[in-house]
Amino acid sequence: MPEPTVADVGEDALVSAVLRTLTASGSRDPEPGPRVVVPPGDDAAVVADAGPVVVTTDTLVVGVDFRLDWSSAADVGRKTVVQVLADVEAMGARPTGLVVSLTAPGDLPLSWATGLAAGLGEGAAAAGAAVLGGDVAEGPVTVVTGTGLGVLDGPAPPVTRAGARPGDVVALLPLPGRPLGASAAGLAALSAGVGTLASPEAPADWDAGAREALTTCLAAHRAPVVDHRAGAVARAAGATSMIDVSDGLVRDVLRVAQASGVVVDLDGAALSPGDDLRALATALDPADRDLARRWVLTSGEEHAMLATFPAGALPPGAHVVGACREPAAGEQPGVLVDGADPAPLAGATGGWTHYGRRP
Amino acid sequence: MPEPTVADVGEDALVSAVLRTLTASGSRDPEPGPRVVVPPGDDAAVVADAGPVVVTTDTLVVGVDFRLDWSSAADVGRKTVVQVLADVEAMGARPTGLVVSLTAPGDLPLSWATGLAAGLGEGAAAAGAAVLGGDVAEGPVTVVTGTGLGVLDGPAPPVTRAGARPGDVVALLPLPGRPLGASAAGLAALSAGVGTLASPEAPADWDAGAREALTTCLAAHRAPVVDHRAGAVARAAGATSMIDVSDGLVRDVLRVAQASGVVVDLDGAALSPGDDLRALATALDPADRDLARRWVLTSGEEHAMLATFPAGALPPGAHVVGACREPAAGEQPGVLVDGADPAPLAGATGGWTHYGRRP
Repeated sequence: MPEPTVADVGEDALVSAVLRTLTASGSRDPEPGPRVVVPPGDDAAVVADAGPVVVTTDTLVVGVDFRLDWSSAADVGRKTVVQVLADVEAMGARPTGLVVSLTAPGDLPLSWATGLAAGLGEGAAAAGAAVLGGDVAEGPVTVVTGTGLGVLDGPAPPVTRAGARPGDVVALLPLPGRPLGASAAGLAALSAGVGTLASPEAPADWDAGAREALTTCLAAHRAPVVDHRAGAVARAAGATSMIDVSDGLVRDVLRVAQASGVVVDLDGAALSPGDDLRALATALDPADRDLARRWVLTSGEEHAMLATFPAGALPPGAHVVGACREPAAGEQPGVLVDGADPAPLAGATGGWTHYGRRP
Repeated sequence: MPEPTVADVGEDALVSAVLRTLTASGSRDPEPGPRVVVPPGDDAAVVADAGPVVVTTDTLVVGVDFRLDWSSAADVGRKTVVQVLADVEAMGARPTGLVVSLTAPGDLPLSWATGLAAGLGEGAAAAGAAVLGGDVAEGPVTVVTGTGLGVLDGPAPPVTRAGARPGDVVALLPLPGRPLGASAAGLAALSAGVGTLASPEAPADWDAGAREALTTCLAAHRAPVVDHRAGAVARAAGATSMIDVSDGLVRDVLRVAQASGVVVDLDGAALSPGDDLRALATALDPADRDLARRWVLTSGEEHAMLATFPAGALPPGAHVVGACREPAAGEQPGVLVDGADPAPLAGATGGWTHYGRRP
């Protein structure tokens, strides 16, 4: 018997199957409690929370943001959660939940839709958040839109991109086991046909270091993770600005620099790629000596928090990668690496952009 | 010079143009105030509000939910706002804002994207709500996803679909100047080639009544409106259940009946179509004598509030259209019209459903 599609079962059964999967994956609040007052299934969900509400939205399009032969449905679900909750967290907030819309053609296997729901549920549970609802719509291609919610605990103001000051240090809050650049490295492997769902094994002649790095980087690309407390910790420590690394370090630092009116000088040595990324880069393209370094500077979908702090106010575990200074006379706010323009290495936009020029 | 597309200007200029349009349309809070603490443009927006948060999401797909030759970009923007904020309102909440994601191919005219933003801004302003942010993504077709937020003022619980009790009356909170069924009537006209953007005039032989009804119904279909206080008023009056008419009266009443475990008997006379709908139905298809009545029972995207109340507790302006009773022995919860199954008139699903059978 062929696998049932969403058109075979229809909208109501599709929604029921998704809600059952969310319940089973533990993220849905089956008994409305003090936090989720009304769970998914009504016109809207209701969440009770104490502070100002933080909201953000993000869209993933098949063939642009994910590929069905590179990522499982659950990977896409986890990625959706991390993308939107990392933006919530980058304001210094505690993530509380998300709603998700799935647009898909009628011939989408039902198991893909429930796999997506399972990934959403797992990702939300890992973040201490709940899947609060969603929508399904018929369309010619698969599009997943997530909207994340969070709450600002305590009286400190939200941390925007605009608060960095001359003299502040720039720090990454690293994700354990996920070196910065790993997502781009995983994408490079998949683009070279290495590690796809149909052909998951590394080439036979790769050494152990490259193999291990491949596993790490594929996981980083397919299903990024985020430390859902890092943003709130940075805010409590006095972060003056914050952003998550979603479109590439250089491009995201540029946004902070422009919003804050400062020049950020990044420290090339502090951003030196580790042995793992170097081993994978060498295995994929031994001729390209800058490949691993380029991954560090331009990798998107990393979702590590990048924040600025007054010198001496760093939270535990923060890794200093640069400093802010006043623009010199005639100089525009911007980003440098070791005092020089990173464009030759990172490309004109320094990362990912929709439409127009590609880095 | 050809009109610029979104790919011509690129992502950053597209986002800037959209934010400028929102500011000009008056919905964006340019000076962060007590309500919008951080406006669009950062990782996420921040809203300060006093009560439990209500959240819901809805997706519109080109060719399924709107057509570029039938609706302007601003129409689609206004429709997006009304769809999501009506769901917020149907919990008894006060709408506060929304975020919107636009997926579109690179050849989308930039003016369509800014037209959408203008409609979003106007619709939000009319609802006392703010456009809090969004996302743009490249994809093969145009998809708009809106996520609405609201707040429950005061101590009364949210109004779900599950609270209707035997003995309650069922009432519509009508929208001034928008008879129930008008959206389906407008869609029927457009489907017959009447009133499209390219050919907006009614046929020469239509009488004045049909012409006037055409204008009303096209507006209802293209850019529905909602009374953004009606839901909160119904909650304050003691509504036991509530839903907005978004997929058709029979289908939406069925949801309430099933969630609440009651039988709803609708009153055919109270739902009798007015002269306006009858005139348009006669002009479009004089042979189909049930057409106007079918519009009333199955028209989606109406977004009028439908609520149940204990007898005697109706808010001003409410129009009683039926009553709830206990299911008889062996009877399932469901919906009847004048004691009979509405399926012969309204179709098996009684309204709109994605995938599978169509009414």
